[in-house]
Amino acid sequence: MSLLVVGSIAFDDLETPSGRRVNVLGGSASYFSLAASRLHPVQVVAVVGDDFGPEQYRVFQNRPIDLEGLIRKPGLSFHWKGEYGQDLNEATTLETHLNVFADFHPDLPESYRQPSCVFLGNIDPALQLDVVRQMTARPRWIALDTMNFWINGAREALLKAIKEVDILLINETEARSLTGERNLLDIYRKILPLGPRILVVKRGEYGVALFTPQGHFLVPAFLLEQVVDPTGAGDTFAGGFMGFLASAPDTDLETLKRAALMGTVLASFTVEQFGTTGLETLSNNALHGRLAALRELIHVAAR
Amino acid sequence: MSLLVVGSIAFDDLETPSGRRVNVLGGSASYFSLAASRLHPVQVVAVVGDDFGPEQYRVFQNRPIDLEGLIRKPGLSFHWKGEYGQDLNEATTLETHLNVFADFHPDLPESYRQPSCVFLGNIDPALQLDVVRQMTARPRWIALDTMNFWINGAREALLKAIKEVDILLINETEARSLTGERNLLDIYRKILPLGPRILVVKRGEYGVALFTPQGHFLVPAFLLEQVVDPTGAGDTFAGGFMGFLASAPDTDLETLKRAALMGTVLASFTVEQFGTTGLETLSNNALHGRLAALRELIHVAAR
Repeated sequence: MSLLVVGSIAFDDLETPSGRRVNVLGGSASYFSLAASRLHPVQVVAVVGDDFGPEQYRVFQNRPIDLEGLIRKPGLSFHWKGEYGQDLNEATTLETHLNVFADFHPDLPESYRQPSCVFLGNIDPALQLDVVRQMTARPRWIALDTMNFWINGAREALLKAIKEVDILLINETEARSLTGERNLLDIYRKILPLGPRILVVKRGEYGVALFTPQGHFLVPAFLLEQVVDPTGAGDTFAGGFMGFLASAPDTDLETLKRAALMGTVLASFTVEQFGTTGLETLSNNALHGRLAALRELIHVAAR
Repeated sequence: MSLLVVGSIAFDDLETPSGRRVNVLGGSASYFSLAASRLHPVQVVAVVGDDFGPEQYRVFQNRPIDLEGLIRKPGLSFHWKGEYGQDLNEATTLETHLNVFADFHPDLPESYRQPSCVFLGNIDPALQLDVVRQMTARPRWIALDTMNFWINGAREALLKAIKEVDILLINETEARSLTGERNLLDIYRKILPLGPRILVVKRGEYGVALFTPQGHFLVPAFLLEQVVDPTGAGDTFAGGFMGFLASAPDTDLETLKRAALMGTVLASFTVEQFGTTGLETLSNNALHGRLAALRELIHVAAR
């Protein structure tokens, strides 16, 4: 029983109102696995270049993260350069160098083919589908994230991949662009016939909205003293969410709600520092303290 | 013991993606008193013109709303014309005709001078202060709403009025413009020394954030099938919030949280129809049903 993630491992150059950093560890698979591995062992499928060295390996090897599926290729790792304005809501991409990621074809090791849970990070939907097709047993949960680039540029392939998954995790703007609807309930009604029975809409500083056939759940983002770098918030949320689901015996609405709280809290640590630093240095005490604080922040006593 | 509101009563011309309406009953005092009077009797201080006829009087007289403080003057009532784009988040003002509101000077009847709670709707801060000065006893709660027009154009007078109040209700953009801060915790820290000990930040479709010395509370807006006209959502929230506080024996954080839920639910009915129609036709069953649904939407079971 394992939790598998396929996605990117990258070096990022980041500029935010709090400062700038170069060659920071990033990518959806990094944030996801560092978050999810607090709750459940993780298997990673990704590709890195020669610049991915002992320092980076150590970050993952400190955790229950299996790197058998991490391919190493000659060349440089995926590199992204982005900046955020004062409102921190949306990154402007300044440069994207795919490098070794350009001809990435995930080929799952034998030991990766029967995961209990799968997260298909935001990559080419044809590859997302290919990963699902390599499973030899149906996982309990498959979740998928995507972005406008694929919604607009590879819609047919994306719809094929979405058809195979249980959970669609997507940001609010992209949910609108995928469905052509603005209202969240309308969006969910359009998503259901595409395949997923669960929808998680990521709303940045306003939190997430969870839609399920059993009921819905709205959770705000945690109130933070400072947001330094929003990069990776969504993938960290996904890691906490899926890590919780992988470790939970149940699949009911209450379990999904608690998974959403875990994702929300983990994401709050990610955005407090550049790159994956917030996740790397997070103690269990701090995690559980903030989980209690988030519960308090949204709690109303029964009448 | 009463709940007093000073504000505008207006006729609005509204255009939203759902349609257009002319001469719809509006204004902060209308939305506030129609919402608050579901929970507690209300005394209204406002001014109307000759165009405010039996049809409009009836809307208020159907409820425990005292109109002794409603001044009637020759001329036309305040008239606002606005439109909303697809995102419904911000109104564009097309026309504002102050009419009889231009030289409005609230003069409280004797029976209005000892309210237990007061809501100073968004009007000239000099008038808001004048209303407070006419009280012969200190109310339990005084709340104030304002907007960018006064923040930028009458800052000194506004700060004097804010100094007298317990609760500042303000939308997110205006909270930023008043304090020069972006982070909500920073905003609250800047508001405290100005006088109010409680801050309610209105975040439109994302709900409200409540800040108190005893703790904070985040509540999302209710998930609606359709938002027809956002006009009056903030004043309706204020009505539900203050009406609940006026009727509650306690002043603790739990009471303020429940007041925020009531405001949120009442506002959800306002935005489902043009003008005050949603509030006028709302049944107690529908109100309490949706209150239970909102509690469900944000509820996580204790571990």
